[in-house]
Amino acid sequence: MATKAFPLNAWYAAAWDAELRHELLPRTLANKKIVMFRRSDSRPAALEDACWHRLLPLSKGRLKGDEVVCGYHGLIYDAHGRCTFMPSQETINPAACVRAFPIEERHRFVWVWPGDPALADPALIPDLHWNDDPHWAGDGRTIHVKCDYRLVVDNLMDLTHETFVHGSSIGNDAVAEAPFDVTHGNRTATVTRWMKDIDPPPFWAGQLGKPGKVDRWQIIRFEAPCTIAIDVGVAPAGTGAPEGDRSQGVNGYVLNTISPETDSSCHYFWAFVRNYRLGDQRLTTELRDGVSRIFREDELILEAQQKAIEEHPDHIFYNLNIDAGAMWARRLIDRMLAAEGATGTGLRAAE
Amino acid sequence: MATKAFPLNAWYAAAWDAELRHELLPRTLANKKIVMFRRSDSRPAALEDACWHRLLPLSKGRLKGDEVVCGYHGLIYDAHGRCTFMPSQETINPAACVRAFPIEERHRFVWVWPGDPALADPALIPDLHWNDDPHWAGDGRTIHVKCDYRLVVDNLMDLTHETFVHGSSIGNDAVAEAPFDVTHGNRTATVTRWMKDIDPPPFWAGQLGKPGKVDRWQIIRFEAPCTIAIDVGVAPAGTGAPEGDRSQGVNGYVLNTISPETDSSCHYFWAFVRNYRLGDQRLTTELRDGVSRIFREDELILEAQQKAIEEHPDHIFYNLNIDAGAMWARRLIDRMLAAEGATGTGLRAAE
Amino acid sequence: MATKAFPLNAWYAAAWDAELRHELLPRTLANKKIVMFRRSDSRPAALEDACWHRLLPLSKGRLKGDEVVCGYHGLIYDAHGRCTFMPSQETINPAACVRAFPIEERHRFVWVWPGDPALADPALIPDLHWNDDPHWAGDGRTIHVKCDYRLVVDNLMDLTHETFVHGSSIGNDAVAEAPFDVTHGNRTATVTRWMKDIDPPPFWAGQLGKPGKVDRWQIIRFEAPCTIAIDVGVAPAGTGAPEGDRSQGVNGYVLNTISPETDSSCHYFWAFVRNYRLGDQRLTTELRDGVSRIFREDELILEAQQKAIEEHPDHIFYNLNIDAGAMWARRLIDRMLAAEGATGTGLRAAE
Repeated sequence: MATKAFPLNAWYAAAWDAELRHELLPRTLANKKIVMFRRSDSRPAALEDACWHRLLPLSKGRLKGDEVVCGYHGLIYDAHGRCTFMPSQETINPAACVRAFPIEERHRFVWVWPGDPALADPALIPDLHWNDDPHWAGDGRTIHVKCDYRLVVDNLMDLTHETFVHGSSIGNDAVAEAPFDVTHGNRTATVTRWMKDIDPPPFWAGQLGKPGKVDRWQIIRFEAPCTIAIDVGVAPAGTGAPEGDRSQGVNGYVLNTISPETDSSCHYFWAFVRNYRLGDQRLTTELRDGVSRIFREDELILEAQQKAIEEHPDHIFYNLNIDAGAMWARRLIDRMLAAEGATGTGLRAAE
Repeated sequence: MATKAFPLNAWYAAAWDAELRHELLPRTLANKKIVMFRRSDSRPAALEDACWHRLLPLSKGRLKGDEVVCGYHGLIYDAHGRCTFMPSQETINPAACVRAFPIEERHRFVWVWPGDPALADPALIPDLHWNDDPHWAGDGRTIHVKCDYRLVVDNLMDLTHETFVHGSSIGNDAVAEAPFDVTHGNRTATVTRWMKDIDPPPFWAGQLGKPGKVDRWQIIRFEAPCTIAIDVGVAPAGTGAPEGDRSQGVNGYVLNTISPETDSSCHYFWAFVRNYRLGDQRLTTELRDGVSRIFREDELILEAQQKAIEEHPDHIFYNLNIDAGAMWARRLIDRMLAAEGATGTGLRAAE
Repeated sequence: MATKAFPLNAWYAAAWDAELRHELLPRTLANKKIVMFRRSDSRPAALEDACWHRLLPLSKGRLKGDEVVCGYHGLIYDAHGRCTFMPSQETINPAACVRAFPIEERHRFVWVWPGDPALADPALIPDLHWNDDPHWAGDGRTIHVKCDYRLVVDNLMDLTHETFVHGSSIGNDAVAEAPFDVTHGNRTATVTRWMKDIDPPPFWAGQLGKPGKVDRWQIIRFEAPCTIAIDVGVAPAGTGAPEGDRSQGVNGYVLNTISPETDSSCHYFWAFVRNYRLGDQRLTTELRDGVSRIFREDELILEAQQKAIEEHPDHIFYNLNIDAGAMWARRLIDRMLAAEGATGTGLRAAE
């Protein structure tokens, strides 16, 4: 069995909705060079970014209506990848086509399926519905991180790192000290951590706007292979949040989907949405910029970790208690890889 | 048989005449590091650019008369590569020498033969005589392109790309639509295209300076392995140019010789010369700068194509009608390679 | 036997004394990533720069007292590399440790032993005592050179290169012309060159401050694998310096220790000390800056030589008379490598 970093039969976020216009947008996804564009009716299209004739990236050419004109010799392809024009000749070689990829738009992202098109069921698009739900408001960004996407998954599945990496904003000792539960299904794993009756960290104290101790929650939901929605928030201590009444508190979701670009780089799409002060655009901007600063701290750590892993190809990794969530995420990824006849090239764990 | 990108037994342009002075000029040609200089009597010399003793590039040293002094320990080599001085010792090891390369100056270029010196017949220097013929005036430049030199050959052997790459200057639909003929000899291949009774593209309309339809010609002459002289021009339609009377028209030559630097980079020497307004130095400058802008468009395409080819090592290339000239050029290159016991590493063509 | 560029069982200078403070200092030495710091009592410590848990470089974390806190999940290591804290758990895996390296401070340098700790005898630290001897004054710097450390050793063992590389300062024809002696012991090799009754080069004329001819000496002492102390100076000709009376002259030591960073790069620590005008800080500064300029000339040569050697993997090197000292240095390095069951990857010499 070959080793691979990611399954091909999966929907990967390839762009934000607003990024994709009626123009050619090149992007590498799952080691494949892809060119995307919106058609006149706004439906997205995705083609292999290499002309059949001499391999020039089609993204160096231009759109003509809903077709792509190669920038070298002028071959034209329709949105299905079929060649419709060749220069200086009447007949078109029927083999002349480039690969078209299944593409769908949902939850403010454009999703591409790099694997077998016959398996590309839109029902399998990961659930990030909070991102275009009128009961939630917020925005996000994309970070290009030079690491295996699984290192980002590890990072998000264990938030004790907040204490050490993000101590000035969202981390405090309580995160590292509080116990947590891990559950899992066939495609999902969930880490639940309640920190009861604690001093809120600076970020949440500001959001709540009330003095005193809080009950804080972090409920991390992983959906294989690379989507993580984190239900986060605080409520005044003792007002019933752990039992289900969050009405006195503030609630947000950190939405993350981390698409492999290559074996050692990824496009990390994230958004932060909240269920309070929905129309406050200044707050939306402040939160987006604040989370950007926090994720920049992770980015430096993750890229240093990727380099270190490449420098220690034989290192055997031992897991701590805090790694329980990440271990489940990796198991679910490995199952998808096994279903494609491949094995993961993840961390060599001692067990 | 080993695969190679270029024959070694060939004259390759290594420098413009004005580039080579009485000083050390390093350049990589056909994967060989070479140092060139002019002797006191202006004859050029070319040596391997690595001292026999500790390999320091001789180009880091200096000229002393017509000899090269190594910049590390002071070994001295004459223009034939023989060591004539060693520090701190009387006797000189008779094996102490660096390789000297056959070198000739002709048609405003300095030509170097990287292969077997016994085969270096100056009669084999490619014909670019227009470049120092008093009936023609013009100038040129060198472009360093990060691609296999054969991609530049392909580019020049099919000018339909003008329509798509250079639409704002020399390209128009007529180029892609007009039929053409291909003929070949043992070392040459010629593509002839006449576009009769057409609207001239902006560039040629300006050169001709007369209104109305034109007959336009492009006669591309390839001389293996990498020299291409293109006879180009327009004459008022119906004044007899296709039959041989170009007296009412304007005529230029695009002179090109593309020397491999490495397997995936080249020194592209070009000039544009004309047979009209010979003393108009402003026009010479304008044409040189104008052609530079056009070739810059090709450079971007060629480097993108090189990267794409490296990323698709198994791609099978199909040829279109427009590729007939390039196919012949590559066949002639492959013959030269076969004569050296090598096979080309060109595009894998389906045939 | 494996081939290696350097022995592991040796003390290598890793930092200047003043560089190492109570903070984390990362450095690569002998292909090992190391993080160093001073403890509260000023003793140095050196650990492997990779957390046992997920390999994040410990240098990305912070010091807490005399322990290192990992910047990702907060694991803590003491100065011996033992883990003393893990997040969210009471028990600590007893295997959790990072490697600690023997480290000593002497002669103004901090020395690290990358090999077997049981063999790390401080008595083996190379002799550079002039660097903190009250009878000598001076200072130095570190140069990062992108070459095999042995090329720097070669450079220093044959000073005839001064004539060709440093002609404007310390070189003159006498260096290349004067005879020299080579002697050696088990770990040392010495090259002695006296240039009697010569015109001093510009540098030494200025230091001596007296007109007339001089006797000049260069006594190069190599201590395997990479330390070279050069006793240099001039005295008025005929005042007895060659016979042992240097009282009319000026004397300096060029102290050099060149620690391999990787197989093809090194940290070159050097100092220039003198036994005259000891309290003249302006002179100390001028000499340090002047020698820096001279060594910059060597650096350009050495990096060009390294690239050339990599480009000519099969080149066979012939030795000249001037290479006698370097040949002995390399023999002594090869003996150390053989003792570790490895062979050198030095220059392939014809013999």
